[in-house]
Amino acid sequence: MIHSFGSDNHSGAAPQIMEAIAKANTGFAIAYGEDAHTKEAEELFKKEFGPETEVFFVFNGTGANILALKALTNSFNSIICAESAHINVDECGAPEKLTGCKLVPVTPTDGKVTAESVKKELKGFGFQHHSQPKVLSVSQPTELGTLYTPQEIKALADLMHEHGGYLHVDGSRISNAAASLNLKISEFTSDLGVDALSFGGTKNGMLIGEAVLFFKKEHAQNFLYYRKQAAQLFSKNRFIAAQFTEFLKDGLNIKLAAHSNSMAKYMESQLKEIPQVKISRPVETNGVFAILDKELTEELMKKHFFYVWDEDTGEVRWMCSWNTQKDDIDKFINDLKQLL
Amino acid sequence: MIHSFGSDNHSGAAPQIMEAIAKANTGFAIAYGEDAHTKEAEELFKKEFGPETEVFFVFNGTGANILALKALTNSFNSIICAESAHINVDECGAPEKLTGCKLVPVTPTDGKVTAESVKKELKGFGFQHHSQPKVLSVSQPTELGTLYTPQEIKALADLMHEHGGYLHVDGSRISNAAASLNLKISEFTSDLGVDALSFGGTKNGMLIGEAVLFFKKEHAQNFLYYRKQAAQLFSKNRFIAAQFTEFLKDGLNIKLAAHSNSMAKYMESQLKEIPQVKISRPVETNGVFAILDKELTEELMKKHFFYVWDEDTGEVRWMCSWNTQKDDIDKFINDLKQLL
Amino acid sequence: MIHSFGSDNHSGAAPQIMEAIAKANTGFAIAYGEDAHTKEAEELFKKEFGPETEVFFVFNGTGANILALKALTNSFNSIICAESAHINVDECGAPEKLTGCKLVPVTPTDGKVTAESVKKELKGFGFQHHSQPKVLSVSQPTELGTLYTPQEIKALADLMHEHGGYLHVDGSRISNAAASLNLKISEFTSDLGVDALSFGGTKNGMLIGEAVLFFKKEHAQNFLYYRKQAAQLFSKNRFIAAQFTEFLKDGLNIKLAAHSNSMAKYMESQLKEIPQVKISRPVETNGVFAILDKELTEELMKKHFFYVWDEDTGEVRWMCSWNTQKDDIDKFINDLKQLL
Amino acid sequence: MIHSFGSDNHSGAAPQIMEAIAKANTGFAIAYGEDAHTKEAEELFKKEFGPETEVFFVFNGTGANILALKALTNSFNSIICAESAHINVDECGAPEKLTGCKLVPVTPTDGKVTAESVKKELKGFGFQHHSQPKVLSVSQPTELGTLYTPQEIKALADLMHEHGGYLHVDGSRISNAAASLNLKISEFTSDLGVDALSFGGTKNGMLIGEAVLFFKKEHAQNFLYYRKQAAQLFSKNRFIAAQFTEFLKDGLNIKLAAHSNSMAKYMESQLKEIPQVKISRPVETNGVFAILDKELTEELMKKHFFYVWDEDTGEVRWMCSWNTQKDDIDKFINDLKQLL
Repeated sequence: MIHSFGSDNHSGAAPQIMEAIAKANTGFAIAYGEDAHTKEAEELFKKEFGPETEVFFVFNGTGANILALKALTNSFNSIICAESAHINVDECGAPEKLTGCKLVPVTPTDGKVTAESVKKELKGFGFQHHSQPKVLSVSQPTELGTLYTPQEIKALADLMHEHGGYLHVDGSRISNAAASLNLKISEFTSDLGVDALSFGGTKNGMLIGEAVLFFKKEHAQNFLYYRKQAAQLFSKNRFIAAQFTEFLKDGLNIKLAAHSNSMAKYMESQLKEIPQVKISRPVETNGVFAILDKELTEELMKKHFFYVWDEDTGEVRWMCSWNTQKDDIDKFINDLKQLL
Repeated sequence: MIHSFGSDNHSGAAPQIMEAIAKANTGFAIAYGEDAHTKEAEELFKKEFGPETEVFFVFNGTGANILALKALTNSFNSIICAESAHINVDECGAPEKLTGCKLVPVTPTDGKVTAESVKKELKGFGFQHHSQPKVLSVSQPTELGTLYTPQEIKALADLMHEHGGYLHVDGSRISNAAASLNLKISEFTSDLGVDALSFGGTKNGMLIGEAVLFFKKEHAQNFLYYRKQAAQLFSKNRFIAAQFTEFLKDGLNIKLAAHSNSMAKYMESQLKEIPQVKISRPVETNGVFAILDKELTEELMKKHFFYVWDEDTGEVRWMCSWNTQKDDIDKFINDLKQLL
Repeated sequence: MIHSFGSDNHSGAAPQIMEAIAKANTGFAIAYGEDAHTKEAEELFKKEFGPETEVFFVFNGTGANILALKALTNSFNSIICAESAHINVDECGAPEKLTGCKLVPVTPTDGKVTAESVKKELKGFGFQHHSQPKVLSVSQPTELGTLYTPQEIKALADLMHEHGGYLHVDGSRISNAAASLNLKISEFTSDLGVDALSFGGTKNGMLIGEAVLFFKKEHAQNFLYYRKQAAQLFSKNRFIAAQFTEFLKDGLNIKLAAHSNSMAKYMESQLKEIPQVKISRPVETNGVFAILDKELTEELMKKHFFYVWDEDTGEVRWMCSWNTQKDDIDKFINDLKQLL
Repeated sequence: MIHSFGSDNHSGAAPQIMEAIAKANTGFAIAYGEDAHTKEAEELFKKEFGPETEVFFVFNGTGANILALKALTNSFNSIICAESAHINVDECGAPEKLTGCKLVPVTPTDGKVTAESVKKELKGFGFQHHSQPKVLSVSQPTELGTLYTPQEIKALADLMHEHGGYLHVDGSRISNAAASLNLKISEFTSDLGVDALSFGGTKNGMLIGEAVLFFKKEHAQNFLYYRKQAAQLFSKNRFIAAQFTEFLKDGLNIKLAAHSNSMAKYMESQLKEIPQVKISRPVETNGVFAILDKELTEELMKKHFFYVWDEDTGEVRWMCSWNTQKDDIDKFINDLKQLL
């Protein structure tokens, strides 16, 4: 496949990542994360997020999310999230199955929950019939490519803490958020009171791998067992760790994400010239959402791979990745114009 | 680390595997297994195991086992296995958590269950208080490196089928079994009535990845959803698939496994000369088990990495891998002799 | 406590029920439902709902609901229900914990879901990332005392069946529905395609006990085991069965429910005279919902026991039961008037 | 049925219990345990077991056991018990399903586990692959009617506490133990370090109901929610509470149990005279176990109801209850003698 706007996980692994894996593939290493590569990657995370940070590697985003949520809940708790959250619509009930918790979806605006809508669900405490609210999970950036401001993150963290709860961030594209906000990731997560972070790798040029970060030791105390029991412990963990080391040591994750973001911005700028395409969401990271005529979408899909986001409204999603080139977008725009 | 006898997953990825991954890393590919690489690997599995075979890729051995078991059970069933089975002792309760089933351990001989001991647990059918027996899970080779003969496999499959049940094979080292039995894998699994097979990759020179095979379509009908819900669906699945294609297209898996096995055999032959070392299990695949003096073990561990298998008896385990060399063993034997 | 409008389960057991229990308490009976009393009650259910009906007794409404849902789902399914459904707001996540399924709440009107709103959630079939829609669960009467018409029930059943799904009815007050609709229960459940029914007893004058009914044998085939594993199998089941026999043999359940309903109707007629009280929901069964001034509510609560239904709007709920007398209502209306 | 030796739950409810229920059935009471009857019963438990005791009522023995275990574990823990424990063989996997834990069965002697056999399973602490041992669950009396001495209970509690674990007692017949040991229940449970007790009612003359007791507040802190989520919260709880009050206020539970025990003792004394019957277990509470010829068993079963305990050995079980009379036994012995 030449190029896909279907998802940032349609791209492969960045060359630096491939090299890091190859370099880690020398000789023998103790399995299950007790190797030097894992230690090295953990240290880099602690360097950014502080020495109290607990770092765990897992295979994929769903694994990261459900394990972070498991560590912060009991089965009788509820987890509040946007109706459009990945954990609510794209994980086939994985959070409910692993944690036993109820998911409480709230209506978002451009993918973002508001403190007000969350507050309405912070009720029934101490009432035995009611799933006890415990975690708010937000995606940063959201599934619609939009961003919470640091102030918003802080307000949500404070709100949850005031109610004895926690804030989890699904950061499968967290580096894209950092690149766009022009902040270190810690500056808009751990520094603001985020309790747990799913730190994405795969969608941003890694071959495989995600990390779960906790910023208070107490939240991590049983994680080793939860991870193993959920089948998310990798024997040859050096290969995930080495990728994260490559990511973090000189900011490769930010560079790759900044490129993806810039491609989306470029795409947006080109699309704005075309009146038949209505950009439907603020383009703040690496995805462009737009509404266009369904027949046009159909024709365009014959030449380019992408997904319809909302069958009802005709909204489509175009994702850019570390591997998207200006030429890919020019070709796309050209094909689109020819169809008009 | 120079060399480890700790586990076959202490070795890295074989060079052919690394090359296959690199080759698969060109351009874009649809995610979640709907790509050409996945299709190609699936076809190779079907070529060996028959066109009815359903193939699913997962991240790790625990994932493969618990999902195979989930597909064959309801929560009120029981799963019979050897007391020493990986699913019983080394997966932190993952089978119970995912399936809700009771595990019924039976006492094995050299890691193998007998039809007789299994038969004793095939009871209580229709009695609502009793977990309904449904699956027998055996490891081939066993955790002790021993092998079920094809006759034994057939007898166990027949036994389970007579009772409306199924036979699952935990084949995290199934290629080692094939190399040792000098049979195609299908000849001692699907051909004999095995219902589901966890087909191992990681321990035999793959970087990451396992497969779950079902030999009747009905058993696989819900697997897509079970896999996703259990967080074992890989977005960039081409990278697991390409490794399996490399494995299967010219028998690389058998070549690597045969090498591991031969190293264990060589090790055994050298150890037999040393009266202070008592080989404790038949060496039929790539592991050597032996009983030696605990102080000797301690000294030896300062020079070589390996695990004590049984603290009580002093039994230790030395695993050979695709990457173990004759020199590694010679050095080990030499160091051992010097300690005596 | 003299009288409570808090809930119909604040009332005790009807005298006929007490007598039936006493009569069943003679000598010995085989446990776990293999006794003559259980058989007798089962036959009475089959007489009303047809010989194919499968009947199971359980302890409570939550048990009935979650087991009915478990029997109709796999863990990767979703269960659609009204946002206000008991299973969604008052069972502390019991459905999610037992079934592993996602609950998908839709916005109801006076407690009732519409076919249109359900249809919107019947999507993502075959898409592995999406919890597969399988069961619609409706409460009849609803938690707001309102009723689905037979036509509405049929339309919902048809809709679900067209999509390979099922319709479950939470009938914790199903006899109240029957009394109000002036229909046999079968006429607005099994006859119209309802697949499973939680048939309530406790709220309608029984001391303890509910029943789960399936109208196709295939749905019931594993229920014995699910019930036992969920700790809902009663050893001395004759005592639940005898109550249901008393209920069904001459229509006691309908008589008691008709009385409760008539008390609510009487209460409504009295309240309508009071301009400061705004009846907020159609009074179709045994509950009256109204909005009144919060200070008035507070004062009234000092004299009568009842619950605020919605803190925000000031809506309150007054439930009548088999044991509510005209005098109780007159006294209540009198006290209310005195406060104005 | 005239008389059954099948189980003590084949008997009905004692007359005092029926009376207590009738007395509790006056007027209205707040549901879900917030009523005066529940408070009264709780106080009686606290009077015996100390003011720190936390008391919760549930429907049945399985519910009591699995909820006690849930409160003391995380899903990655293991629960050690006798192979013959009710939780291991007669609850259809309920403990695994609710808790997610692994059950680790140890071989008992006359139904009792030894400290030595438990100690062997207290291993793998901190090892992420191993289900972390946390709770030992023992039945007092055991399923074979035998009793742990207070010294044995204390030793097991100490052993578990030394390993950071807990001791749970399945006391579905705990009053029979008390009557036989001639001790207050607290003297051989809470006083000796037992952490949680399933306190049985149904098998000892109650109509329905069990209690779960915790002796440290911390273990009970989430129990309300666990109970509700497991569908074990009774709306009309006054009816269970009133029975326990009747039980405890003047020692009715002990009187009934002492009677059952004495009947078993009488039965044993009669059976000892019959050489063809081999009493197979010490008769310490209300059950008699014996081995007799299988054909004799078959003939005897035509006249009396009882169960074969072990098909292989021909061991049978005869249970006496609060409602067993000397005449019932005489008749049984007579019938048995006539068959010889």
